[in-house]
Amino acid sequence: MTTVTEASARERMQRAKDASRAVALLDDDAKSHALRTIADAIEAASAEIVAANTEDLARGAASGLADGLRDRLRLDAPRVAALAAAVREIADLPDPVGRVLDERIIGGGIRLTKVAVPFGVVGAIYEARPNVTVDIAALALRSGNAVVLRGGSAAENTNRALVSAMRHALASAGIDSEAVQTIDGFGRDGARELMTARGLVDILVPRGSAQLIETVVTESTVPVIETGAGVVHIFVDATARADWTREIIVNAKAQRPSVCNAVETVLVHRDALGLVPDLLDALEGAGVTVHGDETISGLSPRVVAATDDDWSTEYLSLDLAMRVVDGIDEALTHIRTYSTHHTEAIITDDPAAAERFLAEVDSAAVMLNASTRFTDGGEYGFGAEVGISTQKLHARGPMGLTELTSVKWIGRGEGHVRA
Amino acid sequence: MTTVTEASARERMQRAKDASRAVALLDDDAKSHALRTIADAIEAASAEIVAANTEDLARGAASGLADGLRDRLRLDAPRVAALAAAVREIADLPDPVGRVLDERIIGGGIRLTKVAVPFGVVGAIYEARPNVTVDIAALALRSGNAVVLRGGSAAENTNRALVSAMRHALASAGIDSEAVQTIDGFGRDGARELMTARGLVDILVPRGSAQLIETVVTESTVPVIETGAGVVHIFVDATARADWTREIIVNAKAQRPSVCNAVETVLVHRDALGLVPDLLDALEGAGVTVHGDETISGLSPRVVAATDDDWSTEYLSLDLAMRVVDGIDEALTHIRTYSTHHTEAIITDDPAAAERFLAEVDSAAVMLNASTRFTDGGEYGFGAEVGISTQKLHARGPMGLTELTSVKWIGRGEGHVRA
Repeated sequence: MTTVTEASARERMQRAKDASRAVALLDDDAKSHALRTIADAIEAASAEIVAANTEDLARGAASGLADGLRDRLRLDAPRVAALAAAVREIADLPDPVGRVLDERIIGGGIRLTKVAVPFGVVGAIYEARPNVTVDIAALALRSGNAVVLRGGSAAENTNRALVSAMRHALASAGIDSEAVQTIDGFGRDGARELMTARGLVDILVPRGSAQLIETVVTESTVPVIETGAGVVHIFVDATARADWTREIIVNAKAQRPSVCNAVETVLVHRDALGLVPDLLDALEGAGVTVHGDETISGLSPRVVAATDDDWSTEYLSLDLAMRVVDGIDEALTHIRTYSTHHTEAIITDDPAAAERFLAEVDSAAVMLNASTRFTDGGEYGFGAEVGISTQKLHARGPMGLTELTSVKWIGRGEGHVRA
Repeated sequence: MTTVTEASARERMQRAKDASRAVALLDDDAKSHALRTIADAIEAASAEIVAANTEDLARGAASGLADGLRDRLRLDAPRVAALAAAVREIADLPDPVGRVLDERIIGGGIRLTKVAVPFGVVGAIYEARPNVTVDIAALALRSGNAVVLRGGSAAENTNRALVSAMRHALASAGIDSEAVQTIDGFGRDGARELMTARGLVDILVPRGSAQLIETVVTESTVPVIETGAGVVHIFVDATARADWTREIIVNAKAQRPSVCNAVETVLVHRDALGLVPDLLDALEGAGVTVHGDETISGLSPRVVAATDDDWSTEYLSLDLAMRVVDGIDEALTHIRTYSTHHTEAIITDDPAAAERFLAEVDSAAVMLNASTRFTDGGEYGFGAEVGISTQKLHARGPMGLTELTSVKWIGRGEGHVRA
């Protein structure tokens, strides 16, 4: 038998494709059993996984990997246990495959049903975050798909240990272990092969920096679901309540600033300027640096003067851009210009302004009087998420298990022919 | 004001994008009124359209355009009337926008709804078929989208006349006429600009030859929905009924051989070989030339010997490939190797074989004891179709109006923040 390390990236994708046929036919119990076996195997291999991770961290330190990235890469025993717990949660989710989405009689008696089916092979390109390795594999398998993983080279040893544990678990659950593949070891060539593996890989999900996503979108011939970047706006309308304004904006910025649904720009209606001093105090109390336009800067010496770049920046930090607008039209124009179509919110007591904003803003999620942090698969009740789609094709907003399925039209006739 | 002919392809796409905002907000009545106005305008301009088409046909004759292509290009008064009738049918279809697809309470009181919304701007790249110009524009507008059309240069005058009629109709219905754009006049550069207009064009639908579709899939950075090519199979199982076998295969091949859901290859179970002589007679009666493997060729001198190329050929003509297989496993393997994942059918009286075939064949449509010709938007009850998707992302099988919509998540809270 060929060992894993001997197969080329292309061969691994072919093996995933071959394995996907049997995985697609697994029933609910078999898939959730497989995931529980994987969770157990990850816990059992905790020491090896942490050891492999320690090697990656040492390499990262030697090559000057930034602290934030090293933190995302780090696994210790509790973090490995958390990975296993996430897999068990996914095991408990309902099977998205086999749902009947439409039923009709056509052609004078053919029973036609539209049924949810797995994609086949799900590809993922991401950065050095080991939890993505496990999450995407578990979500793909739960929805009856094989998976080809391409993580960042900085996590290569960690990913190898995780994939090895998952593959052994599959085999012990009686499932073809080739359903989970990693092509980390093939560098840029491997990524390029994955992006052009049309016919072998059915869907490709990039997760990571804007630059990584841009590369995948531009270079792939495999259908891509774009995830991620969030230059998220909140518009404080003339009739916004002071308490909601303060609480929602502080929550949307400071509760977890490093994520894509955190607010990056606040647009304040000129008639709501009276709310700003309180808001600035609350933001300062939460450790936030405000980058303001001339009017906002004039209200406090702690406000940094914004440049044009601020309006298109996804800070992912305790920084927030703020500017004054003359009304909802200017707010909508600003959002149209700078939004990445992830999430935008309005704070208002005016129903007409609310409905106009909700209808006209062209983003995956639009919120009225609520924090933008709610755009999240967990919050939506999906149990887990593949990512947050900012494109309009197939999936928009948080992607759960159902977004990893396609459909098939099944027609059952009795000798029917077309007239 | 700049006239239409002066604007670059890029400018026209920008205008479509700008116009799409208002079109997205039109209600059901406004959209169906606009379509009826377009139908009237096309009929009123019938003489100009036919005259423009005559120019295109003359150019086509001079440049040696094949007869079949010239027939597809040709418009006379009855065909123009048929175009208008198709637009009126689309006007009568239900509005796909605004449907509530999911509703839930999240975050302790936020009312979250998932609503169908237009894509924004739909792009189409197709060949010299003027009916596609009108069909796609009407379907796009009915679903609240603007549209950028790029037809074959052989139909340039015809398309210009059709687009002019549609734009005048939009203006007279009080809708921004920039919502319908043609970039036929910009040659390959125009097509390239359309394929890379990420951010301006939300979805691109190629319709036409396999080569055109391949080019669009490979070169586009705009999300593409692949339509079309159909190397369609029928498997005659050991227990197939003789009458169904004959009627279904003759219908699937001969009723309209030039379309993508016509059968191209018949696989016959060795135990069903007794059905073949009758089947060959019936096919001959319908004018079909059979390209058979050695066994099939041995049954009749009228059978042409098949080469390996026949198994992957989409004839689109009165030709049919036929081979013998040892059983369902070999049939499934053949289909896996040569299918374009459009439609495949099984003829059988064995429920176990039927269910296995329906589950394991990985195509947009799978049929039991019915003609493959039923894979069609009209037959499915969609009223009209954009094309038949052979990919798994977003749409699979016949695409109607709902497939020209995306979704938006709308959350209505009262000061909710995330814990």
